[in-house]
Amino acid sequence: MIVAPFGRFTEGRVPDPGIAALFTRENRWQARLDVEAALALAEADAGLIPKESARAIALTARIEKLDIKRVLAATAEASHPLVPLIEEFARAVGSKHGGWVHWGATTQNITQTADVLVLRDAHRLLLRQLSRVLRSAAGLAERSAGLPMAGRTHSQHAVPITFGFKVAVWIDQLVAHTERLERLDDRLFCVLMGGAAGTFASFGDAGRVIEAGVAHRLGLHPMRVPSRAINDGIVELVLVLAQLAGTIGKVAKDVYALMQPEFAEAFEPVPEGTVGSSTMPHKRNPQLALDLLTMSAELRALAAPALESMLHDQEANGAMTALLEDVAASAAVLAGDMLARLEVIVEGLVLDPARMRDNISLSAGMIGSESLMLALGEKIGRQKAHDVVFEVAQATAGGDVPFVERLLDEPVVAGAFDRAELGELIDPAAYLGLSAQIAGDLAACATATADRLDAVPPRAPLMTR
Amino acid sequence: MIVAPFGRFTEGRVPDPGIAALFTRENRWQARLDVEAALALAEADAGLIPKESARAIALTARIEKLDIKRVLAATAEASHPLVPLIEEFARAVGSKHGGWVHWGATTQNITQTADVLVLRDAHRLLLRQLSRVLRSAAGLAERSAGLPMAGRTHSQHAVPITFGFKVAVWIDQLVAHTERLERLDDRLFCVLMGGAAGTFASFGDAGRVIEAGVAHRLGLHPMRVPSRAINDGIVELVLVLAQLAGTIGKVAKDVYALMQPEFAEAFEPVPEGTVGSSTMPHKRNPQLALDLLTMSAELRALAAPALESMLHDQEANGAMTALLEDVAASAAVLAGDMLARLEVIVEGLVLDPARMRDNISLSAGMIGSESLMLALGEKIGRQKAHDVVFEVAQATAGGDVPFVERLLDEPVVAGAFDRAELGELIDPAAYLGLSAQIAGDLAACATATADRLDAVPPRAPLMTR
Amino acid sequence: MIVAPFGRFTEGRVPDPGIAALFTRENRWQARLDVEAALALAEADAGLIPKESARAIALTARIEKLDIKRVLAATAEASHPLVPLIEEFARAVGSKHGGWVHWGATTQNITQTADVLVLRDAHRLLLRQLSRVLRSAAGLAERSAGLPMAGRTHSQHAVPITFGFKVAVWIDQLVAHTERLERLDDRLFCVLMGGAAGTFASFGDAGRVIEAGVAHRLGLHPMRVPSRAINDGIVELVLVLAQLAGTIGKVAKDVYALMQPEFAEAFEPVPEGTVGSSTMPHKRNPQLALDLLTMSAELRALAAPALESMLHDQEANGAMTALLEDVAASAAVLAGDMLARLEVIVEGLVLDPARMRDNISLSAGMIGSESLMLALGEKIGRQKAHDVVFEVAQATAGGDVPFVERLLDEPVVAGAFDRAELGELIDPAAYLGLSAQIAGDLAACATATADRLDAVPPRAPLMTR
Amino acid sequence: MIVAPFGRFTEGRVPDPGIAALFTRENRWQARLDVEAALALAEADAGLIPKESARAIALTARIEKLDIKRVLAATAEASHPLVPLIEEFARAVGSKHGGWVHWGATTQNITQTADVLVLRDAHRLLLRQLSRVLRSAAGLAERSAGLPMAGRTHSQHAVPITFGFKVAVWIDQLVAHTERLERLDDRLFCVLMGGAAGTFASFGDAGRVIEAGVAHRLGLHPMRVPSRAINDGIVELVLVLAQLAGTIGKVAKDVYALMQPEFAEAFEPVPEGTVGSSTMPHKRNPQLALDLLTMSAELRALAAPALESMLHDQEANGAMTALLEDVAASAAVLAGDMLARLEVIVEGLVLDPARMRDNISLSAGMIGSESLMLALGEKIGRQKAHDVVFEVAQATAGGDVPFVERLLDEPVVAGAFDRAELGELIDPAAYLGLSAQIAGDLAACATATADRLDAVPPRAPLMTR
Repeated sequence: MIVAPFGRFTEGRVPDPGIAALFTRENRWQARLDVEAALALAEADAGLIPKESARAIALTARIEKLDIKRVLAATAEASHPLVPLIEEFARAVGSKHGGWVHWGATTQNITQTADVLVLRDAHRLLLRQLSRVLRSAAGLAERSAGLPMAGRTHSQHAVPITFGFKVAVWIDQLVAHTERLERLDDRLFCVLMGGAAGTFASFGDAGRVIEAGVAHRLGLHPMRVPSRAINDGIVELVLVLAQLAGTIGKVAKDVYALMQPEFAEAFEPVPEGTVGSSTMPHKRNPQLALDLLTMSAELRALAAPALESMLHDQEANGAMTALLEDVAASAAVLAGDMLARLEVIVEGLVLDPARMRDNISLSAGMIGSESLMLALGEKIGRQKAHDVVFEVAQATAGGDVPFVERLLDEPVVAGAFDRAELGELIDPAAYLGLSAQIAGDLAACATATADRLDAVPPRAPLMTR
Repeated sequence: MIVAPFGRFTEGRVPDPGIAALFTRENRWQARLDVEAALALAEADAGLIPKESARAIALTARIEKLDIKRVLAATAEASHPLVPLIEEFARAVGSKHGGWVHWGATTQNITQTADVLVLRDAHRLLLRQLSRVLRSAAGLAERSAGLPMAGRTHSQHAVPITFGFKVAVWIDQLVAHTERLERLDDRLFCVLMGGAAGTFASFGDAGRVIEAGVAHRLGLHPMRVPSRAINDGIVELVLVLAQLAGTIGKVAKDVYALMQPEFAEAFEPVPEGTVGSSTMPHKRNPQLALDLLTMSAELRALAAPALESMLHDQEANGAMTALLEDVAASAAVLAGDMLARLEVIVEGLVLDPARMRDNISLSAGMIGSESLMLALGEKIGRQKAHDVVFEVAQATAGGDVPFVERLLDEPVVAGAFDRAELGELIDPAAYLGLSAQIAGDLAACATATADRLDAVPPRAPLMTR
Repeated sequence: MIVAPFGRFTEGRVPDPGIAALFTRENRWQARLDVEAALALAEADAGLIPKESARAIALTARIEKLDIKRVLAATAEASHPLVPLIEEFARAVGSKHGGWVHWGATTQNITQTADVLVLRDAHRLLLRQLSRVLRSAAGLAERSAGLPMAGRTHSQHAVPITFGFKVAVWIDQLVAHTERLERLDDRLFCVLMGGAAGTFASFGDAGRVIEAGVAHRLGLHPMRVPSRAINDGIVELVLVLAQLAGTIGKVAKDVYALMQPEFAEAFEPVPEGTVGSSTMPHKRNPQLALDLLTMSAELRALAAPALESMLHDQEANGAMTALLEDVAASAAVLAGDMLARLEVIVEGLVLDPARMRDNISLSAGMIGSESLMLALGEKIGRQKAHDVVFEVAQATAGGDVPFVERLLDEPVVAGAFDRAELGELIDPAAYLGLSAQIAGDLAACATATADRLDAVPPRAPLMTR
Repeated sequence: MIVAPFGRFTEGRVPDPGIAALFTRENRWQARLDVEAALALAEADAGLIPKESARAIALTARIEKLDIKRVLAATAEASHPLVPLIEEFARAVGSKHGGWVHWGATTQNITQTADVLVLRDAHRLLLRQLSRVLRSAAGLAERSAGLPMAGRTHSQHAVPITFGFKVAVWIDQLVAHTERLERLDDRLFCVLMGGAAGTFASFGDAGRVIEAGVAHRLGLHPMRVPSRAINDGIVELVLVLAQLAGTIGKVAKDVYALMQPEFAEAFEPVPEGTVGSSTMPHKRNPQLALDLLTMSAELRALAAPALESMLHDQEANGAMTALLEDVAASAAVLAGDMLARLEVIVEGLVLDPARMRDNISLSAGMIGSESLMLALGEKIGRQKAHDVVFEVAQATAGGDVPFVERLLDEPVVAGAFDRAELGELIDPAAYLGLSAQIAGDLAACATATADRLDAVPPRAPLMTR
């Protein structure tokens, strides 16, 4: 997987989202100990192992109580992802109770459930970041709700919009992705606790009870079928993050384009001291937008292997499990790094209203051609009006005479409107439609979403003590 | 349309899901006329165009009333995807009212909304297919709920399961994808009716009213922001279908593997007359499973371009729109072809219980090693038990002496259990856990889901007359 | 796979590359008959079948001699891709000799070898197209070798270039891809003629002789190991076409960007009669560039399934074979459609030198900052010079005072150069480096490559009569 | 670097290929200093900077002479990937000569050329690994050239092969990829030394001379057009490595399948002490094959972003440059880790000839049906023979009567052959074709390739002193 093998040189400019830190070995191993503790406690409740042993296990389940070096050495020897950790853990628990560690569980029951705990923390941080991005975007949309600029389709002038309307487009999708992330709960935040093949055979009759006990203690759900071959919940997380990367890539493209000297309408913030080029002192590069475009491609590229990881063989294929582990962690880290940069951009975006106004008039007034066509169409029919205006526009595009002059030369048009009426009809500022209203609506929507996210109480501590 | 440029030679063996037929030019153009009709009627209600004209437009909006050849010729001339159709439509409406056709709309308002109508019909057919697959799977899971076979992880024997449990794993994911498909409604089945940039400028103040009128007549939703640059709803459809392709690919891998002569546990149905090979008369190929593996890769490969299509420029980039059109149609057709084959496989799957039993014993009784280890562990501790059984298993794997004999040679084991107890402990049939119960539960879940799907009333006719 | 399920509405504007026609059923079946004919003749030479029979087979190997409907009906019955065609072919050959049709061959020997024949014809057409594109590009590079414009990195002004230099960048990559395509021969244009598993068992001792005979008659190579599980030659074709799609996508991005009203430096040709928008009469969309961006994504998306198709099982997996068949055909068709559009764009590109000149000065003279920095650096050291010019450039960017004035206000600069010297130093036209020379060199390179391609004699007829 | 964010727990079992170490910051920065040294020396030769300064620069170009902490701190401040390193380097060179460091170069000239140096070292190590894998494979192919086993297509028995033939299929593709890697030289191992946009403007007339000087000192090639927007050479490296990952994935699938208890024909080596499962003591997982399947998917997934990175804007887009940097480094590391595991597998593969023999007979003798059909066909015609044998085979598949008995019951067959002849005709050992010969040929081919690789002299030291 690709998560910036060389780091990103903009790291000094953006806050650390804290997601990479969740995927350190220490934190992942602690999560495994948490799962072992929850398992022991649930098994004790079900009468499978002694209560006293479960208590000892739960009390010892702290990574700082283990000798990490022993685990690492044993891993190199055994080539197994978990047994060495369990053995050291059992040793730390002591000979009296250590034998009950990991009772009836298969490796993936522990490793996957622990990874889900880590992904849940990552998910929480991502929603926190989205809340901040949405608040910044709400402010931006409000401030620029009525600020006119050229609307561009296929990068050609279409009809006028406002900058706030553009931000509304960003918000709409960010809110949609937020809702998608919130909806993942049921199939993502689950314990995998059915034993080696998902049949609970090793737990005797107590399988579902133990599963429920572990789930309850960790704040997770049970699975309808606890099979190691079922991973669509985690795949879906990756796909939603890939969609988020699609939208953030779109925002980055917008900013990158508007920052070109030929546009010069909006600029990502460039702090004092930032160097653009080693050799061209005037360069001010859209560096955060560039980062986002790079990471958008990297995160979207994870969708394919995530989907490929669904092709398990029979009751499990460890290659698919490992693939999705790598992919999901990479996706979470990339998403965090992207949102961190997006927040800086949206919060600090610098707008140039004058330049926006100037650029609208680049099309010699033709950005108002639709408005004119509709008004003319009411008099002579839409299609005829389209044809007339089309001809005039084609002629305008090739020459120096302004659109309005050419129009007045055209008898059909001149017969319908005088110069003043024509001027009004093709005035961009009068043809903004609901831009401002939509900007306001979406600012409110962003704020409401952020409020909802912020109202989520902090994660309850694990009940493993 | 070229989804499989060469067709699939198994077409004669599977029912036509009817999805490709939705994407014919005729059907797609009819959908565009439906949208134009709905638009005219909504605009008339809002006072934008004469009621009489709207009625004439709606009455003429039948593809059979148009001269298709004229449209095709004009398209070649104009290189525009819609204007030639509109012009011919306006001509058919007549000079009195034809001028009000397409009033205030931009091309994509019509083409995308029409495509959404087509996708909605495809979605409906896919859910119909899923219902049938789920019912077949429910029957299969029930019939085989208690049928023991080897559970395999990483294609090595793990612990025993039942065939019904395996089917439960399939059902669980198919139900999850069904729910995902059902949940797409809000952001997928929407009119795109905001004019050239989504600001409603061309509709005056009546924008949201007209949008609501069109949506109501077509049974679709309005968009929070009707921007042409927002396409995450359609992208999500592709991603859910790609996930479905992941799961169906997994089922196909299972069937393909079990059909090998070395397994010979389950077989896709091979009708009389089917030829396996031009040169090896004995060949019975898993041809439908092969089709599914091919199509799984093809459908999963659509996720990447779907995600790439989110990177619109500013208010729209037609390249991204066209990309997603191609991708979504291809995904729908592939999904239909896959479900058609899956239905045949699941409905007709032939099981060989005797062979399943024989294969369980391939591991010389070692498939019961976990059961034994846990029982031994209760006496001497889990880790010590693991080590003892591990040693014996390693020795068994390399030689001819059965597991049970080797175990009895091991003093720690022999001291704990006699031969009869040992035999019971490693008896696969006694170590099936909740396999049968889970199979039954998921059969019920599949049936309930199919019932829910079948209870959806047929699509209401469009209110465009 | 995705090959424009709906066609492209620009088809009327571009020549048909003729590649889709190669993949019709009729043409592919004819190729299969050609392979069967070559096989029979080679076997007769080796004494495996009667010479008379081989002659009869070769004479009958014309698709028009077969009853296609019978084949289609039998295919639906047998669900086999080839046996029905062989049976009808044998029937047409007649009872005396028909029994020797397909002697010792397995299905894939015929189908894959035939597909390779079709791919070879496609490959030939693609090289023909590349030759034309390279000639057009050579002309364009020569015409614009000295035409100054802003060089842009990260879409910010960097240093000046000429338009011809930009075209040289396109040519360099197109030539490289041409060379890659030419180099594919050895592992792509091969007969697969080793029988069911590639061991030649069915040909007795004559295996390699028959293989050589078939290869010779078809103008193809033998394979080092004629295994059905080896497909890297075809995969590589797809990957090279995907790289070509990457480069053409880059060219399309360039044209799309330069055609924006804010740039207005270059325009793809828009023929009379082309309609840009149904509602905005002034619109002139970069439609061919848009097509190329869509198809670039579609063709690049084929790399993943092509690579996945390499994961054959054991001696073959038909799912992988079918996958690569679909992918390779789709890639060839897409590549042809892309080159057809590229040719129109490059041949007809309209340049606006005045606008290029105007845009250079958008950066207030700062595009010459590197030149100045180097001159200043010779006097005060590179790093100090960078810092001084950096400060002045930062100040210039924020205000209305021209770069040159600000520079003269800076004592270090003013002490080094007077106004005239400064003006010369930051004159873009004097800082074009080797732009013109490189443009000329690459035009010559393009022409030489086209000459080489055109010198390839037309494909020799198959020696199957 | 996070390629597998969690590492691979099999690391203790496989040799370190040494590729990750090449991509450490220290090694990459040293490569940048090497490029700066080469640049200074070339510029001195061309008279652009003083010879004395160039010598001082070259002598100081050792990473251990720099204060790394200063560079890191300045990077955080400046958000620039190179300027802080240059400044510290210039400081270390001293005030007299330091001002000539990086003269006329743009950042990417240094960073990309340095990365190419690192990739060249990685490429060299990969070829070294391939040489060892090929030698091991040659030995394996020779040892098993005549060892019969079932040939399987679509995982159904086809015709017999030998194990050596299977290895020949692996070798053929590995040799092809080796040749592809060797062929990359021209467009991959190039200096990028044309200044900010590739026009050499900053080097005056000496551009091509300086480029040649740098290239010569570093043992690299010049570029036809030294544009930052041209990256197909590096993309091609990634694509070839992805193809290699396809082939290695195929080998892993083969081993994984043959190691199943139902096959038990071949086993990857499992060293003493390896633990298969935490809960199922008998488990011997194909862990290295699993690693390879995971990494095959991860490396193949890099093709899409590599191809996407070709879509540069105008003279460069830094987002695409950064994307390809990440992708190429990840691909190199993954390829090394894959080859390391492949070497262990191929070198230590354990074969079970008895089990291979047993499995051949699983199809009740039908694996010889082709041989029989051809012999029968010589008497009654191929198609009739196919039909007769097809019928008998269908009947055999459904019952307990051996193929040979059923055949003797069939008058057409019984009339043609007696029992002994029949037995001989369907004897797998007599129907191996050229399996052994092909195995031998490819063993020789592997050895010759390894010899050629080993004959490449060690890389000459950089001429930067």
